[in-house]
Amino acid sequence: MGDAALLTALAGGVGASKLLVGLKHVLSPRVGTAIVNTADDEEFYGLHVSPDLDSVVYSLSGLADDVRGWGVGGDSFNALEMLGRLGCETWFKLGDRDLAVHVYRTMRLRQGATLTQATMEIAGRLGAGWQVLPMTDDRVRTMVSTEKGLMPFQEYFVKHSHGLRFHGVKFEGVEKANPTKAVIEALEKAEAIVICPSNPVVSIGPILALEGVKQKLSTAEAKVLAVSPIVGGRALRGPAADMMTGLGLDPSPAGVASLYRDFLDVLVLDSVDSAYVDEVRALGVKPVVADTVMNSFEDKVRLAKTVVRELVGDI
Amino acid sequence: MGDAALLTALAGGVGASKLLVGLKHVLSPRVGTAIVNTADDEEFYGLHVSPDLDSVVYSLSGLADDVRGWGVGGDSFNALEMLGRLGCETWFKLGDRDLAVHVYRTMRLRQGATLTQATMEIAGRLGAGWQVLPMTDDRVRTMVSTEKGLMPFQEYFVKHSHGLRFHGVKFEGVEKANPTKAVIEALEKAEAIVICPSNPVVSIGPILALEGVKQKLSTAEAKVLAVSPIVGGRALRGPAADMMTGLGLDPSPAGVASLYRDFLDVLVLDSVDSAYVDEVRALGVKPVVADTVMNSFEDKVRLAKTVVRELVGDI
Repeated sequence: MGDAALLTALAGGVGASKLLVGLKHVLSPRVGTAIVNTADDEEFYGLHVSPDLDSVVYSLSGLADDVRGWGVGGDSFNALEMLGRLGCETWFKLGDRDLAVHVYRTMRLRQGATLTQATMEIAGRLGAGWQVLPMTDDRVRTMVSTEKGLMPFQEYFVKHSHGLRFHGVKFEGVEKANPTKAVIEALEKAEAIVICPSNPVVSIGPILALEGVKQKLSTAEAKVLAVSPIVGGRALRGPAADMMTGLGLDPSPAGVASLYRDFLDVLVLDSVDSAYVDEVRALGVKPVVADTVMNSFEDKVRLAKTVVRELVGDI
Repeated sequence: MGDAALLTALAGGVGASKLLVGLKHVLSPRVGTAIVNTADDEEFYGLHVSPDLDSVVYSLSGLADDVRGWGVGGDSFNALEMLGRLGCETWFKLGDRDLAVHVYRTMRLRQGATLTQATMEIAGRLGAGWQVLPMTDDRVRTMVSTEKGLMPFQEYFVKHSHGLRFHGVKFEGVEKANPTKAVIEALEKAEAIVICPSNPVVSIGPILALEGVKQKLSTAEAKVLAVSPIVGGRALRGPAADMMTGLGLDPSPAGVASLYRDFLDVLVLDSVDSAYVDEVRALGVKPVVADTVMNSFEDKVRLAKTVVRELVGDI
């Protein structure tokens, strides 16, 4: 791989962030690009909150709370407590340092900056190292259909702890939304493309639903590799398996491969799922078995090395 | 005094807040009204910050930091530190709990609420007890003229620690601003009016500069009493004495009385200034000598009792 935009990753939140930390370490000093889902962005207290962008930026910057899995490590929650006293709902747990990022982002958007500009400033100043790009500067919002009706993703995911029955999903605004020029360039110039182990339906799905993205992936000369977010029939975190089942897909690496089959070259699946290799291969996708569960930094680096080895040979 | 809007106070920030805490205690369970300066409101990070309103609300709610003299007691500053990392100026020290109030206020204003509505919600939910009213829902901004040019009040007061030479002051927007209906009513219905020991130029001055306020005070049947913020030729806090001198006024209780003479009935001055009683009396204002420096809760209550006794007789 060359020096330029060598590796481009499609990313959701927590699972993606773990792999990106490993990739950053393995590829250093070369810098990759993460294209991040913004369809589960939400407004809280008039502030623009971008959970996936922030997970990625905090992780790459070494600021993430690894234990809790979200927000900034060691953060306090005094503003949130005060907002509660002022009568606001507080089920979305915004820490004080985290809140500052939302205040900053909202200020910049109100000043006329794009989400891309605001994100590059935040990522740059917090020291993410990588280029972190929102998938679009337009408004796309994941709405989840449940037995309690249609609701914004964060309400389904956080407020109801994704405990409601999943009927379906739609990405409001996606028809009118465009991937940014930076996103298209990152896909065109990539020498390798990684689809991170994120929810295929609501994290990677919105990126793929943007005009032109699937086509760029299909026609890319770069090899496209995905890491299965489904391990042993379950998502490591979140409702990916339930959602896949709800959409009539097998919650397995084979289901993931079939979702991505139009553009996927390689699928990394967990060793507990090695029984699926033939099924994946039958879809025209090369299966690679590895330990994909990332708890420690070493886990992240080991998986990243597997990914990079598959994409570009020994490193 | 009756049960209704018995006492109305004109208030700036810290000095006013101390007296209001005393008045709240002395008049309890009766509830007074504070009309508060908003000309030193400022926007930080896209958030509407109302320093005087917040000083009054935090003090009446028992949340103020008495030691520091501003903000919420025991507050943390993690959001501010993060905003600094993001490249923002951080000379205005917003604590995390304090920031939440600005986030809430800004949200409500963007939703179309008036500053009066937002303030009543904040004061109500934090338990201020009293009715706290911004002087206006319109935008008025104190600009201070210094040797470094014209600058917003908070820049002069906080960033430069009011260390620049004071040339003059103007209240931008005051010609087009109106006192709210609630403010006019609070003045009309008041059975007693107190001008708190706040900076006469930049805290009380903007309230008096609003169309109709001076006239309401002049024609009020209610007795109007002020507590001198100048003690021994100096302001207890802030640049009141410098500003009065800069405007050609004597930085003394007599100077305060002459500023307010059109509507003032009683001036409470500190015992160190008892030499001024004749000069004050010569202006048609009744001087009352008392200990006006409020350090402890007992100081606040003692001065409040003096004020109430002068206004309505023994309590």
